[in-house]
Amino acid sequence: MKAIRTIEWKHGAIRIIDQTLLPLKFRVLDIRDIRVLWKAIRQLKVRGAPALGAAAAWGVYLGVKDAPETEFAGFSRRLDKVIGYLASARPTARNLFWGLERMGSVAVRNRQRPVSRIKKLLFRQARQIVEDDRQTCRAIGAFGSTLIHGGDTILTVCNAGILATIDYGTALGVLYSAQARGRKFKVYACETRPLLQGARLTTWELTKRKIDVTLICDNMAATLMAQGKIDAVITGADRIAANGDAANKIGTYSLAVLARHHRIPFYIAAPFSTFDLQLKDGAQIPIEERPAGEVTTLYFKNPVAAQGVKVYNPAFDVTDHRLITALITEKGIIRPPFKAGIKKMTRR
Amino acid sequence: MKAIRTIEWKHGAIRIIDQTLLPLKFRVLDIRDIRVLWKAIRQLKVRGAPALGAAAAWGVYLGVKDAPETEFAGFSRRLDKVIGYLASARPTARNLFWGLERMGSVAVRNRQRPVSRIKKLLFRQARQIVEDDRQTCRAIGAFGSTLIHGGDTILTVCNAGILATIDYGTALGVLYSAQARGRKFKVYACETRPLLQGARLTTWELTKRKIDVTLICDNMAATLMAQGKIDAVITGADRIAANGDAANKIGTYSLAVLARHHRIPFYIAAPFSTFDLQLKDGAQIPIEERPAGEVTTLYFKNPVAAQGVKVYNPAFDVTDHRLITALITEKGIIRPPFKAGIKKMTRR
Repeated sequence: MKAIRTIEWKHGAIRIIDQTLLPLKFRVLDIRDIRVLWKAIRQLKVRGAPALGAAAAWGVYLGVKDAPETEFAGFSRRLDKVIGYLASARPTARNLFWGLERMGSVAVRNRQRPVSRIKKLLFRQARQIVEDDRQTCRAIGAFGSTLIHGGDTILTVCNAGILATIDYGTALGVLYSAQARGRKFKVYACETRPLLQGARLTTWELTKRKIDVTLICDNMAATLMAQGKIDAVITGADRIAANGDAANKIGTYSLAVLARHHRIPFYIAAPFSTFDLQLKDGAQIPIEERPAGEVTTLYFKNPVAAQGVKVYNPAFDVTDHRLITALITEKGIIRPPFKAGIKKMTRR
Repeated sequence: MKAIRTIEWKHGAIRIIDQTLLPLKFRVLDIRDIRVLWKAIRQLKVRGAPALGAAAAWGVYLGVKDAPETEFAGFSRRLDKVIGYLASARPTARNLFWGLERMGSVAVRNRQRPVSRIKKLLFRQARQIVEDDRQTCRAIGAFGSTLIHGGDTILTVCNAGILATIDYGTALGVLYSAQARGRKFKVYACETRPLLQGARLTTWELTKRKIDVTLICDNMAATLMAQGKIDAVITGADRIAANGDAANKIGTYSLAVLARHHRIPFYIAAPFSTFDLQLKDGAQIPIEERPAGEVTTLYFKNPVAAQGVKVYNPAFDVTDHRLITALITEKGIIRPPFKAGIKKMTRR
């Protein structure tokens, strides 16, 4: 398979795959304006927590590379404005803010240098974030692959794969890594309403990688578990609090409760850039609510509900850390008690 | 609101509402051929366990009313063929077979009478089944309404309302009954993938009845429960075994597990025609699997999954009786232990 890069810097633009068109059309977009990037993030043309970290980093560079200011003060004001603007695109995924913070701190650390030099350093930082993501995902995959056994059937939700990162994935990276080690397993992919990232993106990715995948509607997971057909659940995460509570795509919490009821291990795979240790627990994670039309109309030929009906459309939910068997990170697998484990691992 | 009758005999034909077109179009179909009825059942133009009982009854009458046979033996062979044919339309809902059996037994009981007379008795039996359903649903509603308190928020799935019965509903009948008693409450309706009966039919019904309803995707129920926003879950059923295990629309079992985890009562409302006391438990209930296209394409503008991806699409799941707080029937509310309670209630 030709390598897919979800996001890269190419010919003076941020090149992304327009993920809203998959699997019907594979189309790349070259973004040269941060307002276009902001919209692409908001509309989920680029999505997935780690990919948002990279998008944020390249977005900052794009937003300041042609800045006319030659003094740091003016440049810094512009930079802050760009960072604040990009931060407003989506509220939940920690990686977006992490990417912006890493870029901001490069400027602050180098405030004595000429602005032209700072711009170069920002470019390098963005490139480094992308390179780090590649390495991070491979490390997550390597650690996580020890949890996948030959003959297993794995359930996943949304897309925590190549398309959610640079080119490997977190939850799906674990599967790619197990595959590379010669393990045979099957996957059930929850379609992930309302935006169908599981149906559109995960089945597409796994099929390309020749992994045996079966698509289900989100409400079918429980019956598969009751039939004894699921050996483990693996998902990604958008933000993880200090106690291990994890925000991820809506439906994840449901799977975690169901997994507990059926005594099935429930794993979350995420890089440390997803952890928000400022937050004591998941109750403090802001949850994005998205438009009603995503549920009632977006992917449908026609509206599928009574006209004007109220809709509740949270994009994420929070999984209580007590329902999580282990967190799979690039530094290793963290098991309960999570608070101590996360703290210890952070210091490494 | 003008009374809606889901199914009725009109001008020598079975008149149904084509439920696949709702809520976009309200269109009735006059069915004069049992092959058309069979297809309408298979395609879910008419659906819902109690409505299938009525469709079966009218279907039998339609299939034999113009039979040329004047001797019982020949008529009976034709009748059996019609019954066997209609029984093959869908495998899970008990009421379909119940309706067919009731019609068949009318013929057998009256075998000494002229065929022309038997035909008239079959017509009356079908009309009686329809009338019984109206009474039954109102009784279910009256009993169930005692479980709904002012200020409650109720979660439901699929459509167990007017459109699933003749004109009142089982799970939604409970709500209509509570409304008639002046109780104020809110409802969350799960959209019910893949065929969206919750989004398309339940929001339409409840909106027409001026009940406060909010639509969610199926994977959002858990987060509402975790937020303390759900006071009770009420669903219908397609078949209930002797021990109380209940088959219902896919996703019901998931809600029952989630309700248990969050200590929320979980009620099933169904008439006795849904009970299959031949079956010891839910493991014996046949579960219909439906085509992949319902998940990957049906309501969408375009296919939403990788080409040729495998799909698992069970139309129903079975909820373990231990997860059910009470069964709401036309004879009263049955609480655990269900086996004894169902047996006792059957004799009434």
